[in-house]
Amino acid sequence: MEAEFIQWLRERLPAHPRLLLGAGDDAAILSVGQSQGFVITSDLLSEGVHFVFDSAGASRVGRKALAVNLSDLAAMAARPLAAVVSLLLPQHDGLRIAQELYEGLLPLAFEYDLTVAGGDTNCWRGPLVVSVTAVGETTASGFLRRSGAEVGDAILVTGTLGGSILGRQFEFEPRVAEALLLNERYTIHAAMDISDGLALDLSRICLASGVGAEIETASVPVSEAAYNLAGGRDFHREALLHALGDGEDFELLMTLADAEAERLLRDQPLEIPLKRIGLIVSRPGLWEVDAAGNRIHLEPRGYVHQ
Amino acid sequence: MEAEFIQWLRERLPAHPRLLLGAGDDAAILSVGQSQGFVITSDLLSEGVHFVFDSAGASRVGRKALAVNLSDLAAMAARPLAAVVSLLLPQHDGLRIAQELYEGLLPLAFEYDLTVAGGDTNCWRGPLVVSVTAVGETTASGFLRRSGAEVGDAILVTGTLGGSILGRQFEFEPRVAEALLLNERYTIHAAMDISDGLALDLSRICLASGVGAEIETASVPVSEAAYNLAGGRDFHREALLHALGDGEDFELLMTLADAEAERLLRDQPLEIPLKRIGLIVSRPGLWEVDAAGNRIHLEPRGYVHQ
Repeated sequence: MEAEFIQWLRERLPAHPRLLLGAGDDAAILSVGQSQGFVITSDLLSEGVHFVFDSAGASRVGRKALAVNLSDLAAMAARPLAAVVSLLLPQHDGLRIAQELYEGLLPLAFEYDLTVAGGDTNCWRGPLVVSVTAVGETTASGFLRRSGAEVGDAILVTGTLGGSILGRQFEFEPRVAEALLLNERYTIHAAMDISDGLALDLSRICLASGVGAEIETASVPVSEAAYNLAGGRDFHREALLHALGDGEDFELLMTLADAEAERLLRDQPLEIPLKRIGLIVSRPGLWEVDAAGNRIHLEPRGYVHQ
Repeated sequence: MEAEFIQWLRERLPAHPRLLLGAGDDAAILSVGQSQGFVITSDLLSEGVHFVFDSAGASRVGRKALAVNLSDLAAMAARPLAAVVSLLLPQHDGLRIAQELYEGLLPLAFEYDLTVAGGDTNCWRGPLVVSVTAVGETTASGFLRRSGAEVGDAILVTGTLGGSILGRQFEFEPRVAEALLLNERYTIHAAMDISDGLALDLSRICLASGVGAEIETASVPVSEAAYNLAGGRDFHREALLHALGDGEDFELLMTLADAEAERLLRDQPLEIPLKRIGLIVSRPGLWEVDAAGNRIHLEPRGYVHQ
């Protein structure tokens, strides 16, 4: 339902000189006063949809509720400023749950120099709901967006992909520092964070940019967790499908002009892996290119919001 | 639980040079770049706690979810800029509900020149939850806060009070324009919006300012709705208690130096009523002063968040 609704909504939201970038990217960018650009993003996590309370625990839910917003700020190459936290707490044990939640959230806020500026706290007879809105500012290097990919661009990802369900979905480090550094030193044409799976999110960059993409599957950085999930006869293929389709990697997905990507890969300026996985092409759609050079159409798999 | 939790949380939120005013007022104020002050506030409404879906309808819930945030911006005398909207929709009829909700919310956003900058939309098996975060900016006149009331100040309110449950809870007009005008032309010591009832909210101004207050009950502007709710033998007293205790008036409550209040009341610069209802005193607590001049201790009644 989400895609259909967002389309309906976008048609009803008028352009405004204050809105530099509206709904449809990882965050919105506002022009406020003298500032470069003011970035705002919001994510809501609810028990039973986004997490299982008994296995996750309130502390990890609290950390994640902020971390997904930080990852959205990273996708825009924005510096975090502040967040507000709205809670719907179960009536039983609400205070303890709220405290544990903040004990997971606050250390991450301090780590990223983000101010927790308030929010709204309520109890009800339902399950736990956590809604976090984070604000940030763009730097002198400007902001990143999904729609700038150009034919001939190299496609790069940070980290390794797949199998986040084994733990990474709660423990991931939002790539804020990495995005700020890359945006300062290199010209990045398009970027987003991988929240719904590499293939699906890459298809969104393609759609926003009016291009297609070829993924060289042999180059995709498959995580250890993805291998741990793959247990069948076609072990390597299974792990690759996890890397292509699993959600919640929260790594950066970027496209850069070929020569710029070469320079970046030579420099390797990050402490985490940075890998080239494919090419932006003019032919629409997603294409898998295997080691033998065969092109196969790739369905954008991944987590689709209902 | 809310008060206990906020206390616990405030002890854990460190001061930050960026945070001009933190949790505990109607909104937080951030210093961002060159801007005067950046204001952020968040309110979450949930079915069964804040509204009954079948009687309210999605459109009025959508309008209200934004209006309560606008009222918080008004309480700080901030100019609205943008909002993000996060939704948890029931699986049955989710798209229609989301559309109706925005059909209530968007006209109010346009009216206040507020940009809807995105959000997060989810479906689940639970009831409707709407979380709105609004951002605004302070003007050259600075911002209003709860903690500035001084002994000898006159206490003023806009509009009439009580009985919002008969309709006003959904139809109220946030006092954004009024707050901006008053803050530009007059020196206001303390202000907030009346969301939980006059007596309870006035006791919060007193607590934040380290003062007490006397309410001249004969001067309290009792609404027609409060009279409609009062049906017993002591009709006038009952209506007054609704005006003192009912939540969701969303009028402005302010304190000003006596002479400044006189000037303001002479000018009557607003198109809505503006009335003096009492006096800030040094003796802590809330005091009711009747027509004969008797002082009675007044319990802060009102809606207490659980």
